[in-house]
Order: sequence, then C-alpha cells, then structure tokens
Amino acid sequence: MTQLLRVQNFGVSSDGFGAGEHQSLERPFGHADPMALLGWAVATASWPNRTKPGGSRGIDDLFTRDYARNIGAEIMGRNKFGHQREPWPDHEWQGWWGAEPPFHTPVFVMTHHPRPSFSLSDTTFHFVQGEPAAVLEQAREAAGGKDVRLGGGVAVVRQFLEADLVDVLHVSVAPVALGAGERLWESPDDLLDRFSHEEVPSPSGVVHHLFWRR
Amino acid sequence: MTQLLRVQNFGVSSDGFGAGEHQSLERPFGHADPMALLGWAVATASWPNRTKPGGSRGIDDLFTRDYARNIGAEIMGRNKFGHQREPWPDHEWQGWWGAEPPFHTPVFVMTHHPRPSFSLSDTTFHFVQGEPAAVLEQAREAAGGKDVRLGGGVAVVRQFLEADLVDVLHVSVAPVALGAGERLWESPDDLLDRFSHEEVPSPSGVVHHLFWRR
Repeated sequence: MTQLLRVQNFGVSSDGFGAGEHQSLERPFGHADPMALLGWAVATASWPNRTKPGGSRGIDDLFTRDYARNIGAEIMGRNKFGHQREPWPDHEWQGWWGAEPPFHTPVFVMTHHPRPSFSLSDTTFHFVQGEPAAVLEQAREAAGGKDVRLGGGVAVVRQFLEADLVDVLHVSVAPVALGAGERLWESPDDLLDRFSHEEVPSPSGVVHHLFWRR
Repeated sequence: MTQLLRVQNFGVSSDGFGAGEHQSLERPFGHADPMALLGWAVATASWPNRTKPGGSRGIDDLFTRDYARNIGAEIMGRNKFGHQREPWPDHEWQGWWGAEPPFHTPVFVMTHHPRPSFSLSDTTFHFVQGEPAAVLEQAREAAGGKDVRLGGGVAVVRQFLEADLVDVLHVSVAPVALGAGERLWESPDDLLDRFSHEEVPSPSGVVHHLFWRR
C-alpha cells in the first residue's frame, strides 16, 4: 500500500490566503478570523472538539471525518506550532492545543532551531531540520505504514509542492477575502499542470477542492 | 460516543430501484447491471478490490473511503447474502464474495431459516431472526463501540427506516432508469419528514444523497 502525503482540510480565503498577517499569541491566524476559514468544520457532527450534541452530517462532515482516517504522522511548520520566531527562549510553549492535541500521532515540526521531543497525551512532537524529502522520510517511517498529513502552514505546503512530494490535497475555499497574508495560490488553477481536480460546493458556503497527482 | 446505524454507498437508479427483478446466481442484481449502479465506486483509487494502480481521488473516492471507517458490524438481508429462497438446501453457499469478503467484521444476515455461523477470513456471518430493533441490539454489541452498517438490500433498509432505527444514509443515485425491481423510494423527498438532506453531484454522473436524522 502506498503511503500518501496528504494535505487535508486546509482552509484558504477566496483570494487564496491560508492565514492573515501579524500572527501573535492572541491571533494564531493573524488578522484572519479562523472561524471564517474553518467554521465549516467546527459546525459538523464529527468535529473532534464538539461538546454539545448535534452538528451537520452532510458533505462538510465527510471531510471532517476523513481528516484523521489512515493518518500515521503529521508534518507541520514552526508557525503552525507557535507564534515565536528565532531560537526558542525556553521550552515552555507546547503548541496552541492544550493537553489533548488533535493529532494523536507523531508530529514533525520543521524548524532550524533544535529542541527536544516531548509528548502531550498521545501526540509526540519532534523538532526537525532538513529538506522536505528527508523530513518526509522520517515521517513515513514513524507513520507505521499509514499516510502522512502535511498540516501546513502555507509556507510548508508550498515548499512540499515545490519539491513535488504532495500526492493529494483537500483545500476548502471560504467565501471571504483576506486581502493580505500567507498566500497558498493565486487560484486553484495554479496546480492543474500536475494534479487532477474536482470542485465540490457545500451548502455551508465553502467550496471543497480536491487535487490528486496525475 | 453514540453508535450510529449507517446506510453507506447504497446505489439506486434514477427511478429509485436498488436492484432489478429476477435475481439469480448469475445476476445478483437481477436485470440491473451492478456497474450502472456502483461503477462510480469501482472507478476510485480506494476501491478495495482494485488490482491496478490509478483510480480517481475526487468526491467519489471520499465516499468509497468512508464505507469502512468506524464500522464494527453489518446487518444485511438474506437476498444480499444469496439468491436462494426458503430453507437452506445445505450450507455450501457462503455468499457472493469468495474467500475474502469485503466486510472484515461480524455480519448479521436476517433470515427466518436457521443456520450455523461461519467465518471467511476476518468476516464472520451470523444468521439471525427477529425484529429490526433486536437484530440491531445484537449487532451493536458485536461492533465493540463502533457504528453498524445497514448493508441492504432494499427490503431491509425499508424495514429499518419503517422502525425509525436509521441514523444516517448515504445513497448514490445513478443516471440510469430501471423501470422495475426493488424500490427504495419514489423520490429522495420521501425521507425529508424525518431527515436533514444534502445532495452532492459528482463528475462521474451519480448524485450522492446524504441524510441524517433531525
């Protein structure tokens, strides 16, 4: 069975931004409202942090359910892990997600600044340097035969696309413009030279874009 | 976590038939061509019996992948299991699926005619009588906390809908009319009194219908 590298439930604005400007502790997505980009997933029955019963079980829920299916490891960039730049001042920061991160697998955080691995519940964070292909190799090994999720942010997704290492992408395009920030693409057409493509509009207002390598 | 009863990847014709007339050993779907109803799934990358690489990874593949996700048992009718009617002449018939049935869980076959359980690879078939609620109870117990798939055929799906035991349904409507056979519905609107509903058209020509209990 092939181990795929999958981008999954990656939210961008109608003008192609995956995050806004000026990330900070208070605003992980910068000036962007994360609910505008990812509210479609939060509203579903399968949203992992759902506390009340209910939620939709339509097409958006299908994507929410698929987020963790057959995933054995995640690769993320340092700016997805935290708002700090430059060397770690200390090791107090353990990510945005509290004591129960939603990954439940090894997570490989790409950074030039070394740091020891640590675990929170069933998620273990490793801090790694190197080229995308070498990081992917490590993640594949840790995934125990399962797929690897490329978790973002935008810079990391672009880096792996550039290296032609991404097998499938699911990008949700929200009906909101950001004007500035971290840009994934000018338009979904940017990927059509290498990927097959389907568009699936949802009643929630987002359009799900599916790409798979030809 | 609630254990759902799910109808999944259930194919019907544009005029609402899940199977044709005159089922036989040679024609499990009667006069209907099973590829006309379920070819959309067979064409996907995740189709379990795929022998060659390739296949689509668009919206149809998402449904194919979801077929087995978090399923711990299946309930099916006797006519899905085999073409025989009346008491079993012997126990030679072990279903249509060969030595590796695609279920990989306990399967509860509803029949008035007793027969001992047997296993093929990681699928065990049990033969059970009784009301839908009682059969569901057994399947839930066997599912070990996971969901139960209601596998069909049409008569069994209708029976469980009648008893208001179905939580979610995914029905794929193919762009082909059958004219006669086992009818699931006059129209998807038949379910709107109790279920929320979304329609998702696929480039393959089928329209995926999602229902969840309000």
